[in-house]
Amino acid sequence: MSHKFTVVLGSAGVLALFSALSAVSLAAVATGDGVPFPNGLRDWFLVNSLTAGADSALFGHVSGMHHIYVNATGLQALKADGPLPFPDGTVFADDVHEFSVKDGSYVEGAKKAVTVMVKDAKKYATTGGWGFQVWAGGDPSKPLVPDAAHAITACFACHTPQKAQDYTFSTYIP
Amino acid sequence: MSHKFTVVLGSAGVLALFSALSAVSLAAVATGDGVPFPNGLRDWFLVNSLTAGADSALFGHVSGMHHIYVNATGLQALKADGPLPFPDGTVFADDVHEFSVKDGSYVEGAKKAVTVMVKDAKKYATTGGWGFQVWAGGDPSKPLVPDAAHAITACFACHTPQKAQDYTFSTYIP
Repeated sequence: MSHKFTVVLGSAGVLALFSALSAVSLAAVATGDGVPFPNGLRDWFLVNSLTAGADSALFGHVSGMHHIYVNATGLQALKADGPLPFPDGTVFADDVHEFSVKDGSYVEGAKKAVTVMVKDAKKYATTGGWGFQVWAGGDPSKPLVPDAAHAITACFACHTPQKAQDYTFSTYIP
Repeated sequence: MSHKFTVVLGSAGVLALFSALSAVSLAAVATGDGVPFPNGLRDWFLVNSLTAGADSALFGHVSGMHHIYVNATGLQALKADGPLPFPDGTVFADDVHEFSVKDGSYVEGAKKAVTVMVKDAKKYATTGGWGFQVWAGGDPSKPLVPDAAHAITACFACHTPQKAQDYTFSTYIP
């Protein structure tokens, strides 16, 4: 599977995740599923980006500029394309920003949401060893996934077909 | 001046830079102007991004997904919005990638070019204290700006109006 192909799948996956989430709830939930907010993600390694226009039927209210980051724990396996699974402690985060269109260009705006998938093979055994969460506005006090059960329908369902890539979509683009 | 406004200026600036360059030469030059290639830029801090569509009259052959990075030397001044000028050794780099459109989304592709502006107040005194260069395909052996004289017309001319921001366009988006 080429890098380009998997990145394309990645965009579809992100789209589907948000689409599913919108069906669950747009309001922040009082308590999350225990997945920690990815403090310092802006200092992590940028894996790749995609910008989703509002004209995509898959996106709805979660169009945006998506920057996918990985923390130091998962960086080596990402760059080397393995070995998989990713080590416990690996975190992928999607730093979602608004964007505007100026002179035929898509320009980054304010933060819109932050999502993560964090690896803990034992703790999250029922969802491929990954815990999922989304925070509205990138605000650590506003998780959108109320519990692990919702993470299955809102997040893991779309990641399941990616089992061969340890349920991830993102690939390293030098 | 708001961050959003300066970012918009940033996109125009990048566009203009490439537009000017295309008028100079599309072929790599045998020797550059002494500006070093930004080795390791993918590990630097991502400042912001913009994606320029091919339908922009300003872009021409240099449409692409532009990721602006800054090295550690300039990071503090960038985040704090000063004090300016940026310290000597500051480097801003634009990691330009191809992109494709899939399901209404703009998906990152292969590397297309790398540009830098590096601060050395004495060495580059005639261009605001910044040295400029662009490498085709992100290949260190393929600089596109033959000498400092061409850097003025291809690069610095469009940065000159940004004097109040030490000739930079990019701003930090948390």
